[in-house]
Amino acid sequence: MRRDTATSSRKRDHLEICYEQPVEAGDAGFGDVRLVHNAIPECDMDAIDLKTRFLDAKLDSPLFIAAMTGGHPDTLEVNRRLARAAERYNLGMGVGSQRAALENPELEGSFTVVREEAPHAFLCANLGIIQLRDHGIEWAERAVEMIDAQAIAIHVNLLQEAIQPEGDHSAVGCLEALRGLCEEFSRPVIVKETGSGISAETARKIFGAGAKAIDIGGYGGTSWAKIERLRATAPELAELGEAFLSWGIPTVVSLCEVRRAGGPTIATGGLRSGIDIAKSLALGADLGGMALPLLKPAMESEEALSATIEGIHRHLRVAMFLTGSLTVADLRHTRTYITGLTRQMIESNDKTKDPARRLHGY
Amino acid sequence: MRRDTATSSRKRDHLEICYEQPVEAGDAGFGDVRLVHNAIPECDMDAIDLKTRFLDAKLDSPLFIAAMTGGHPDTLEVNRRLARAAERYNLGMGVGSQRAALENPELEGSFTVVREEAPHAFLCANLGIIQLRDHGIEWAERAVEMIDAQAIAIHVNLLQEAIQPEGDHSAVGCLEALRGLCEEFSRPVIVKETGSGISAETARKIFGAGAKAIDIGGYGGTSWAKIERLRATAPELAELGEAFLSWGIPTVVSLCEVRRAGGPTIATGGLRSGIDIAKSLALGADLGGMALPLLKPAMESEEALSATIEGIHRHLRVAMFLTGSLTVADLRHTRTYITGLTRQMIESNDKTKDPARRLHGY
Amino acid sequence: MRRDTATSSRKRDHLEICYEQPVEAGDAGFGDVRLVHNAIPECDMDAIDLKTRFLDAKLDSPLFIAAMTGGHPDTLEVNRRLARAAERYNLGMGVGSQRAALENPELEGSFTVVREEAPHAFLCANLGIIQLRDHGIEWAERAVEMIDAQAIAIHVNLLQEAIQPEGDHSAVGCLEALRGLCEEFSRPVIVKETGSGISAETARKIFGAGAKAIDIGGYGGTSWAKIERLRATAPELAELGEAFLSWGIPTVVSLCEVRRAGGPTIATGGLRSGIDIAKSLALGADLGGMALPLLKPAMESEEALSATIEGIHRHLRVAMFLTGSLTVADLRHTRTYITGLTRQMIESNDKTKDPARRLHGY
Amino acid sequence: MRRDTATSSRKRDHLEICYEQPVEAGDAGFGDVRLVHNAIPECDMDAIDLKTRFLDAKLDSPLFIAAMTGGHPDTLEVNRRLARAAERYNLGMGVGSQRAALENPELEGSFTVVREEAPHAFLCANLGIIQLRDHGIEWAERAVEMIDAQAIAIHVNLLQEAIQPEGDHSAVGCLEALRGLCEEFSRPVIVKETGSGISAETARKIFGAGAKAIDIGGYGGTSWAKIERLRATAPELAELGEAFLSWGIPTVVSLCEVRRAGGPTIATGGLRSGIDIAKSLALGADLGGMALPLLKPAMESEEALSATIEGIHRHLRVAMFLTGSLTVADLRHTRTYITGLTRQMIESNDKTKDPARRLHGY
Ligand SMILES: Cc1cc2nc3c(=O)[nH]c(=O)nc-3n(C[C@H](O)[C@H](O)[C@H](O)COP(=O)(O)O)c2cc1C
Ligand SMILES: Cc1cc2nc3c(=O)[nH]c(=O)nc-3n(C[C@H](O)[C@H](O)[C@H](O)COP(=O)(O)O)c2cc1C
Ligand SMILES: Cc1cc2nc3c(=O)[nH]c(=O)nc-3n(C[C@H](O)[C@H](O)[C@H](O)COP(=O)(O)O)c2cc1C
Ligand SMILES: Cc1cc2nc3c(=O)[nH]c(=O)nc-3n(C[C@H](O)[C@H](O)[C@H](O)COP(=O)(O)O)c2cc1C
Repeated sequence: MRRDTATSSRKRDHLEICYEQPVEAGDAGFGDVRLVHNAIPECDMDAIDLKTRFLDAKLDSPLFIAAMTGGHPDTLEVNRRLARAAERYNLGMGVGSQRAALENPELEGSFTVVREEAPHAFLCANLGIIQLRDHGIEWAERAVEMIDAQAIAIHVNLLQEAIQPEGDHSAVGCLEALRGLCEEFSRPVIVKETGSGISAETARKIFGAGAKAIDIGGYGGTSWAKIERLRATAPELAELGEAFLSWGIPTVVSLCEVRRAGGPTIATGGLRSGIDIAKSLALGADLGGMALPLLKPAMESEEALSATIEGIHRHLRVAMFLTGSLTVADLRHTRTYITGLTRQMIESNDKTKDPARRLHGY
Repeated sequence: MRRDTATSSRKRDHLEICYEQPVEAGDAGFGDVRLVHNAIPECDMDAIDLKTRFLDAKLDSPLFIAAMTGGHPDTLEVNRRLARAAERYNLGMGVGSQRAALENPELEGSFTVVREEAPHAFLCANLGIIQLRDHGIEWAERAVEMIDAQAIAIHVNLLQEAIQPEGDHSAVGCLEALRGLCEEFSRPVIVKETGSGISAETARKIFGAGAKAIDIGGYGGTSWAKIERLRATAPELAELGEAFLSWGIPTVVSLCEVRRAGGPTIATGGLRSGIDIAKSLALGADLGGMALPLLKPAMESEEALSATIEGIHRHLRVAMFLTGSLTVADLRHTRTYITGLTRQMIESNDKTKDPARRLHGY
Repeated sequence: MRRDTATSSRKRDHLEICYEQPVEAGDAGFGDVRLVHNAIPECDMDAIDLKTRFLDAKLDSPLFIAAMTGGHPDTLEVNRRLARAAERYNLGMGVGSQRAALENPELEGSFTVVREEAPHAFLCANLGIIQLRDHGIEWAERAVEMIDAQAIAIHVNLLQEAIQPEGDHSAVGCLEALRGLCEEFSRPVIVKETGSGISAETARKIFGAGAKAIDIGGYGGTSWAKIERLRATAPELAELGEAFLSWGIPTVVSLCEVRRAGGPTIATGGLRSGIDIAKSLALGADLGGMALPLLKPAMESEEALSATIEGIHRHLRVAMFLTGSLTVADLRHTRTYITGLTRQMIESNDKTKDPARRLHGY
Repeated sequence: MRRDTATSSRKRDHLEICYEQPVEAGDAGFGDVRLVHNAIPECDMDAIDLKTRFLDAKLDSPLFIAAMTGGHPDTLEVNRRLARAAERYNLGMGVGSQRAALENPELEGSFTVVREEAPHAFLCANLGIIQLRDHGIEWAERAVEMIDAQAIAIHVNLLQEAIQPEGDHSAVGCLEALRGLCEEFSRPVIVKETGSGISAETARKIFGAGAKAIDIGGYGGTSWAKIERLRATAPELAELGEAFLSWGIPTVVSLCEVRRAGGPTIATGGLRSGIDIAKSLALGADLGGMALPLLKPAMESEEALSATIEGIHRHLRVAMFLTGSLTVADLRHTRTYITGLTRQMIESNDKTKDPARRLHGY
């Protein structure tokens, strides 16, 4: 059972580090995006409808509670509060990686509480692509059953694997495993990064394998390189974490790349307000997910969490009002200004591989 | 009469806050615009003619005294001084929102003083688009009659409505009300933002509704988000003000967008010298309006206000001289350099909605 | 004689201010230009030939001693040293404005010393375009005769005129006067700015009037707005100087614009080393002129001035060596990288007046 | 023998200065290059193959030990350690300039130790292009024989020559000498800059002369202008070093230019981690060379040097893993984002000489 304990106690470490230390790195790019003001919006702010659909689910808001925790008894309370919020506001919610509980069913309680508290919510199970490959569809099924999930997110986090002491260093067979799951599984499969973003090329592979949606998990929010550096005891690993602090595709850049592949997307990574959700939707995302900004209030109290969510909704509504968006669909047609490094990266994207060609057009 | 009192005393609050506290936010973009020097201008600086026309009015200068105040007895003296300056220099002038006096005719004195002191000036009445919708053309007529105005500015300020405690949250019917006014009204209608700017799309709607001119009211000068944050007592509203401090289209960007719609424009929002007026005109504006830079001297004395206006004219004349512009019409043909964030925003404007398309051209 | 005394003593004031106070403003753009390194230059640094031709004169270096002073007895020593350097190194040299001596022939000594000490040098007489207009070709002839000059520079400095107490505010008739001079004069006429640069449009007018060369006098070096602000006693003039501190076309931008007009050019304004001369030549200038960097050593001693000139030549030679330029003509074929604000301004230049058109191409 | 001693003791000075003082200047551009993350890399990090080929040699890594030292007895120990590392990790290695030992065979020991300690490594002899020209192919042959080298690097360092007291100021005949060598020599010839980079034009000349590869030696790493300034005793030379501190083509820019010429390249100059090697390869380099980052540990101990090399490999492997590159060849097909000044310089490259044409396209 040593391995279980390791997986499980790591979960507790993560929450503590995230609560107490600065775990963000880089810039997701939202400061480089501006929504175009609509001076005569012809809509009623109080009538703005945040309802939206995602993979057949009907949600009351495009705010998605991103996958965070579960797997250690100490995380149960946090998951309970997140679940109650998901139920109260009818939000989609992802649970954290269920690996610990799949390895050791005694740890399921911190996951099952989620469905207990959120009987009607759209829930996403969560499994690492490495575990999927190693344990097969059966684990995916058990993960979904554990919380009666409507969908499953297969997370990819190879930067973290590469730099953490317990990391798995091989991704061989992952894409094949994903394809297998997508073909045979009863629920829609979402592929989700956890802080390094998804490129245009990878998005094409993911949709090609049959996934129904992509969760960006872009660079510029919570940084696993930073968290692993804080956890690292071996100096080479601390140093690796440091060196890869700036690795990844910023959320906005990734979102623009993934959008070109055409499928549904959840923007996560560095969204810090309802305005960032509005910007994400204007750039083509279907939902805007947040982890860290919800984690802290969820560790404090139900009231703190509700206040945070309502604040996010308040900002989102004002942004929708001022862009004349009565619905989420309207918001997705809003024009944006894109500037700065984000624009340079997006414009750097579109040429062939050869850098001379790319920049000179011959 | 509770409501009247609220509207009226808010006016006094605003002046006080603007006088004592820093109420500007962001960057209107004038630092990113440079006028092209004309080394052999072939004109006489002392013969430069600042005269211009705006909506059939003959003005002695393109400096416009932007709408500021009225509605509370304490604002009368300020309006008197502004009006005397408008008369002396034959400037166009807008009064502040007349709502308080329309709600409570006892408060008319702080508006009627303007026409008394400026019998020949081009005056713009001022009414919020919400009040227009709610009270109809009759209020617009009363507003114009109150000061025997040559035109009426219908202001839009939905950011402020959204974040102020007394704010009206619905803009439904506003465009229709505007169209109705434009069709039936005897005087030209100007639509005016108050700090968030007008987009190309909105400009088309405004001219399409029959308005005769647009007053940009762009981002980068006096910030109502900032003023409302300073006034706010409820923490959520203070926090909303904070979050929307950076909302809006910078004046220069908005001006370039509105100019493409083709009608007459007043550039306001962050103009801080006669050189900024010159830049606005070179970018296509018809007048350059200022509020805050005139408010402070107007709260001090008639002499202070005259000195400020003459300083603005002195700078404007030098800028016209050094671009070889004998007249305002010449100035409007002067070439400019546009750089920096302003240029990026302008160049970000022109593609279709899809951000991938927008930036990649496919 | 009051007027003479004013003109003359102003000259002494200028030298003092330039010696003791920071009189530079802005950025000429040389930091945004990089010469392309030639790793295998195939030339001998010690054989590099700085000789060049300018308007039929044979010069031993493209370093030009820009117009500075004369007209007050205290300036005689400075002019003597500059002239001896011009003779020793066979450099072209411009004297300062000869107005004071034309108004009062007793003051000629500080100019005639130049030809006495530099019997073989290429000397440029110097007269303001306002004086040319007001006093006609006769003054130009007297100016040339005074120092037996090979050419005359007609300087334009309308920013300074506009903001100095004694300034002339009319430029009417200047272009006509210039055309008249160019038609009838025996010597080539150079038109020279003094810190605000020449635009493409103005360059076309100047060459169209018959001038043989343009001296850029661009923005980013010695700033007359700054000097006049330091001299100003009236607060409005000090304030005007302040407001126009950032007025003008940076030297590099102006050079690129003037080059498109096709004639010979001297780059002046903010050149601060031999590398800046090399960059100017690579961008198409024929000579690189310096005022302030030569003024300070010239006020100290002949040795200091020689050391400065030799340092400039040393840098220029190394830059030529490392770009593989055996001659000044080779240097003018060297490729450059242009970046930053300078590039943005150059690229902002090329469209039609309408800013929407200019940036959007429709 | 005075000259030998000078050459030789200079070598010792260089090591000391590099060890104790900050000798880097500028920015090589790697911060402006980002590798595109591949979220599902489909490879096993532990199976990543760093093996590569360069000029028929089979190397175990694209890390190249750039030419540094030899020629003074005190440098022997450093060369021994570098050689042992080259042997242990099967890296390519260049020795420092062999001039001192060619001038004075008694000094050969610090070079011959390299082959003794690295009997199987790919070694590059090193000779200045000036020495090649002055002493002919015979010196090149002796240099190669001295260490039984597989190839010879002919270094060019004319910036250093221009600003160092002992510098040779003529490059006449160098290209011819290079052509002669390439035609007659039994081993492949590499041309190598030492800190100022190679332009597109020079690359074409070099490959045209018959060289088999180019070592970029770009700007932004160890700066010889800085080292020479620190060594300089004559104030004019210190001042020259200072003035040319910013001279040179940044490594990334140079690499993009040289790549367009088509031949094999070693990227050196400012590479500071395995990630920079990965970026260099993604931009088209064949090997990534480092000098300074290896010099310091090599001066300390064999262990320190091994730890440094393993750290570089660890970073390189993670970067390859996260771009899905199982081999060096894969890495060379990875897409990059290029932004900032580096992108501006690259995009500034491609037009004809005329700056107006270059930027305006007419
Ligand atoms: C404490 C914590 C635990 C997380 N655990 C998981 C996880 O188990 N599975 C997963 O897919 N993502 C996990 N994430 C990643 C988030 O879902 C999200 O993609 C990422 O944190 C970026 O969003 P943020 O910047 O709003 O935090 C976790 C994030 C945090 C902060
Ligand atoms: C104290 C104050 C009161 C204002 N009141 C009004 C108003 O009642 N109606 C209106 O249309 N604009 C009003 N404005 C907005 C101004 O007309 C102007 O559009 C805006 O302040 C931007 O210009 P500035 O940066 O020069 O201040 C007011 C501005 C100030 C500073
Ligand atoms: C003290 C001083 C006096 C000057 N006087 C004249 C002048 O009389 N006529 C003129 O054409 N330019 C005059 N100039 C301008 C210079 O010729 C030159 O165009 C300008 O200073 C920019 O070069 P710099 O940055 O190297 O100083 C003067 C400059 C200085 C510093
Ligand atoms: C101490 C030292 C000595 C060097 N000596 C030579 C040399 O003799 N021959 C040569 O071609 N390059 C020499 N170089 C240049 C390096 O090979 C390399 O091109 C340059 O230092 C840039 O790489 P870096 O930034 O990683 O140091 C030397 C560099 C250093 C630091």
